Amino acid sequence: MTQKPSRREFLASGIAAGAVITSASAAKAETPDPLITETQTWAQSFGDGVDATPYGMPIRFEDDVIRRNVEWLTADTISSINFTPIHALDGTITPQGCAFERHHSGAIELKKEDYRLMINGMVDRPLVFTYADLERFPRENHTYFLECAANTGMEWAGAQLNGAQFTHGMIHNMEYTGVPLRTLLEEAGYDTAGIWVYVEGADASSNGRSIPMEKALDDVLVAFKANGEALRKEHGYPVRLIVPGWEGNMWVKWIRRIEVMDAPVESREETSKYTDTLENGISRKWTWAMDAKSVVTSPSPQAPISHGTGPLVISGLAWSGRGAIVRVDVSKNGGKTWETARLAKPGEKMALTRFYLDTIWDGEEMLLQSRAMDETGYVQPTKAQLREVRGENSVYHNNCIQTWWVRPNGEAENVEVS
Amino acid sequence: MTQKPSRREFLASGIAAGAVITSASAAKAETPDPLITETQTWAQSFGDGVDATPYGMPIRFEDDVIRRNVEWLTADTISSINFTPIHALDGTITPQGCAFERHHSGAIELKKEDYRLMINGMVDRPLVFTYADLERFPRENHTYFLECAANTGMEWAGAQLNGAQFTHGMIHNMEYTGVPLRTLLEEAGYDTAGIWVYVEGADASSNGRSIPMEKALDDVLVAFKANGEALRKEHGYPVRLIVPGWEGNMWVKWIRRIEVMDAPVESREETSKYTDTLENGISRKWTWAMDAKSVVTSPSPQAPISHGTGPLVISGLAWSGRGAIVRVDVSKNGGKTWETARLAKPGEKMALTRFYLDTIWDGEEMLLQSRAMDETGYVQPTKAQLREVRGENSVYHNNCIQTWWVRPNGEAENVEVS
Repeated sequence: MTQKPSRREFLASGIAAGAVITSASAAKAETPDPLITETQTWAQSFGDGVDATPYGMPIRFEDDVIRRNVEWLTADTISSINFTPIHALDGTITPQGCAFERHHSGAIELKKEDYRLMINGMVDRPLVFTYADLERFPRENHTYFLECAANTGMEWAGAQLNGAQFTHGMIHNMEYTGVPLRTLLEEAGYDTAGIWVYVEGADASSNGRSIPMEKALDDVLVAFKANGEALRKEHGYPVRLIVPGWEGNMWVKWIRRIEVMDAPVESREETSKYTDTLENGISRKWTWAMDAKSVVTSPSPQAPISHGTGPLVISGLAWSGRGAIVRVDVSKNGGKTWETARLAKPGEKMALTRFYLDTIWDGEEMLLQSRAMDETGYVQPTKAQLREVRGENSVYHNNCIQTWWVRPNGEAENVEVS
Repeated sequence: MTQKPSRREFLASGIAAGAVITSASAAKAETPDPLITETQTWAQSFGDGVDATPYGMPIRFEDDVIRRNVEWLTADTISSINFTPIHALDGTITPQGCAFERHHSGAIELKKEDYRLMINGMVDRPLVFTYADLERFPRENHTYFLECAANTGMEWAGAQLNGAQFTHGMIHNMEYTGVPLRTLLEEAGYDTAGIWVYVEGADASSNGRSIPMEKALDDVLVAFKANGEALRKEHGYPVRLIVPGWEGNMWVKWIRRIEVMDAPVESREETSKYTDTLENGISRKWTWAMDAKSVVTSPSPQAPISHGTGPLVISGLAWSGRGAIVRVDVSKNGGKTWETARLAKPGEKMALTRFYLDTIWDGEEMLLQSRAMDETGYVQPTKAQLREVRGENSVYHNNCIQTWWVRPNGEAENVEVS
């Protein structure tokens, strides 16, 4: 089985890709022009003018490609999560409109004019920045993934929801524009004895988190644009924190205060939540970086194979909070043998990487898996390997290999292989 | 004047960036908590739940960041253009929702199920592909700009519209996923005597264009995703052509047919339109590649300086249809002296590059210009230089240096410097 079918292989697999015009199918025989189907009268009328949609939305035929929440998962939708429809996306950028949301007390509405960001604590001069102030500092642009620590958490508990959107959809990837936090801390004159910052948002939950100063000075951004435009309300308009590679909960939205401290706060969100209780009852804390992980997005339960045997593109996403993805392997038999996938572009640090395996499907069932490797040499583990280290109590940081059982009819199901 | 203000310089410029908490302004004196403004009651109520917007839109405070058309420009909106609000964007990605549209007979609505793409002409086997067929070929991901040949065309005629959106907004930049046209041509078995392809869309205008086979085999994509999700209706759903670096008119939307030929068609769109009549009456044709160009997006007429003197970020976009941008210079005095801007990322081939000049504004008027250089060594010309070569009759391919006159009050105006 080759990875890049040559022309001959596509042709050898019959009329799998592209119908020869002369061998018209039954449907085509009824329409003299093969480009005009019964329901489609192309080129016979005018379309919409350029004033029709000042700001456009997806076409109505794609109205199932949306964020979805799982009703039983949380008691209330204001402290809840929804999921990016990763099964229906390709490439690496996630449009803001379908990028998952996680709120602890709902998405709040702030105006730029009213926005304030305070830097206080162990600094020479406590400062309050307006939005216009932030726009006056040198900006950077970076594309980063954000993954919720709880992504794939339901798999730990064996919920086995049937779709990549639900198992791995607490993730998005955007191009951010913002000011390095380092610049603002320097402006305030941080005390070098201040080895932590405590960051909090303007929402009712405040969602406070402690971040080591080393990270704060390294690559943390105070961002006001995502994918070129203003942050959406649900993504923290007008300003959010970007903490590359680290769990999404630390990317505080509607950020209102940054306090320089000599110790962490040990807040609710870093003690009773966002820690991992091990088998012996001891909890891992400060588990900030998201380890290397991947998932096949197509075929998958929400994206079955809709054609017969022959050429098949297996596609998915890989990422690591510790650097760039350097390799992704795909298995069709539950991990017995592996083929190296093609990366659409060289992996970028802390950004989603798209992988493809261009293959020929013989129509047999598959136990489809993907396995990511990052530049540190770390290899994505199996669930058994992770269980061995973490035990049964964990919720967060499940980065184990996912399996889809693809049946001969092309439908896929979330299964566990032992 | 330095490009990267150090901490001391920010501070030296007074309270330009960040208000010291202890020196409360009058407004602040009335509110004991500097983070709570009169109209903003942060953290005092819950926000929206995660089921509120399955597909999100920009927050209402940003409802002026939209595509806009110019009513007097065309007789009808179905054969017209609107403009990307580049003055309000940052970074490089353009969200589909505000990416400009150009239609010759309106944006038509096609279903994936009804979609067909024919490859015929000088091929071994004429083929008709369904949408599902296209999904079975190996895919690529690339980020490219699309610029309409007529972008900045109104400047040729001296219209001097007051805003970067209108002077330079016939451009967008997206991450595309698609199948190389080369792959489909190989599948059909193109005749090596076929040195042109003719491409046409499914809209009433058909918008047919001839493309040299060399380009078709090089980097042209048959794309079905933009910025990760399905193409929007107005951008050619479900499938459009991507012709990197070449004028937008060739990026045929709703593409329905590709014919391999031994000569160009010399269609309407490449003879009476999209050619440049010179001073001597002879028209340049086959002017496909978009030459290096740039524009300052902020400050600009729609994005005035809203603060006083001191730190100022001058920001803009640069691009070239002949490769990567390697350098952008900015002038504050109409081209007398230049400073080299900072590129947010190394330039990528045929993609938008964001540049910044981090400077200190003394409050004096500026004649703000930017000048792009690409990897071929080409330097963006002045209008006078371009006039000398092209004369007065041109409409398309105006890539000359743009000037904004920034007044001491921070407002900017589109002006011409001689």
